[in-house]
Parts: sequence; structure tokens; C-alpha cells
Amino acid sequence: MFCYNGRNVSVTRENKERKKIDVKINRRKYTIVGTESKEHMELVAKLVNDKMGEIYQVNKHLDTTQLAVLTAINTMNDYLKLKADYEDLVTLIEEEE
Amino acid sequence: MFCYNGRNVSVTRENKERKKIDVKINRRKYTIVGTESKEHMELVAKLVNDKMGEIYQVNKHLDTTQLAVLTAINTMNDYLKLKADYEDLVTLIEEEE
Repeated sequence: MFCYNGRNVSVTRENKERKKIDVKINRRKYTIVGTESKEHMELVAKLVNDKMGEIYQVNKHLDTTQLAVLTAINTMNDYLKLKADYEDLVTLIEEEE
Repeated sequence: MFCYNGRNVSVTRENKERKKIDVKINRRKYTIVGTESKEHMELVAKLVNDKMGEIYQVNKHLDTTQLAVLTAINTMNDYLKLKADYEDLVTLIEEEE
């Protein structure tokens, strides 16, 4: 969904209007391109930046790559937990129908 | 939830039994510590590794930190979309009650 930094190479295959914003994540500038609203893209970047900051606070020996990978790992874990909750809800609704 | 690499400094505050596994993400070894099952932790690491690989395929000029940040951004975006879907479902259930 998001494209990237400098050359703006896309990872999305959606055919919607693209917006480009500059964000800072862990003191490094990234140009993000996506089809979502700018506010949404800024929120995503802010949440990633906040999460990296939180992880850094308890893992100050990590280099930036390790921090970024750990941020991705924690976000993926949150995603999978929410996905399980979502599927439970869907099952609940199906059972009641 | 996950701890980290070498010194195993925790980012979790949960008071459950911790398990430690070694995983490879983007050809670098990470020691992950978490309270989830080993299978769950391996799945999280695999999904992050797969996503980084996918993003690399269309952004071959990126360094590992950029790749990891972009992976975190995309995962966070997926998380927020799923969260919106989840909240819609909860609203639907509440309206029907």
C-alpha cells in the first residue's frame, strides 16, 4: 500500500489517486506514497515512530535496523492478535444468525 | 510483547512464562523472547520476513533499515484497517442487541 523514499517505488497495486507525504521516523526522513488520506498516512507514520521510540527506551543497545525489525515484529504480533479477535467476532455473529 | 536479540531485554510487562527462539529475518539472526507459543512467535517472524522480502522485490535499492521501517509501516496500516473493520463489527453487534 505504501510507496517509498526518494524514488517512490510503489508496493501497491491499487489504482487510486496517490498522495505523497514526508514523515520522520526515528530521526530519518521518509517519503511515503499511498492511496489513503494524508491524515491516515501521517497517523501510520506517527504510530510506527512512537512504537520505535517505546522499544528504544527499553532496548537502548539496539541499532536502528534491529529497532525497526523489532517494531515490525511487535506490530505484526498486534495485527495477528487483532485478527484472531476479529475472527472470533465473525464466528460469534455467524453462530447467532 | 517481544523481547530481543542477545541481551533479551523485554518490551513486555506481562508476567507469564517466557520462551526464547532464534529466527532469521532478512538473513540476520534474532533471538526473540515472548510469552506467546513458539509456533506463534515463529509465525510472526516468518510473516515479517516474508513481507520484507516482498517489499524488497519492488524496492531493491532500499537498505535493511528502510526495508524494516517500510515493513512496520505497511503492517501498521494493515493493523489500522483491521481495527476499523473490527470496530464496525462491534458497532453492528451493539446495534442488534
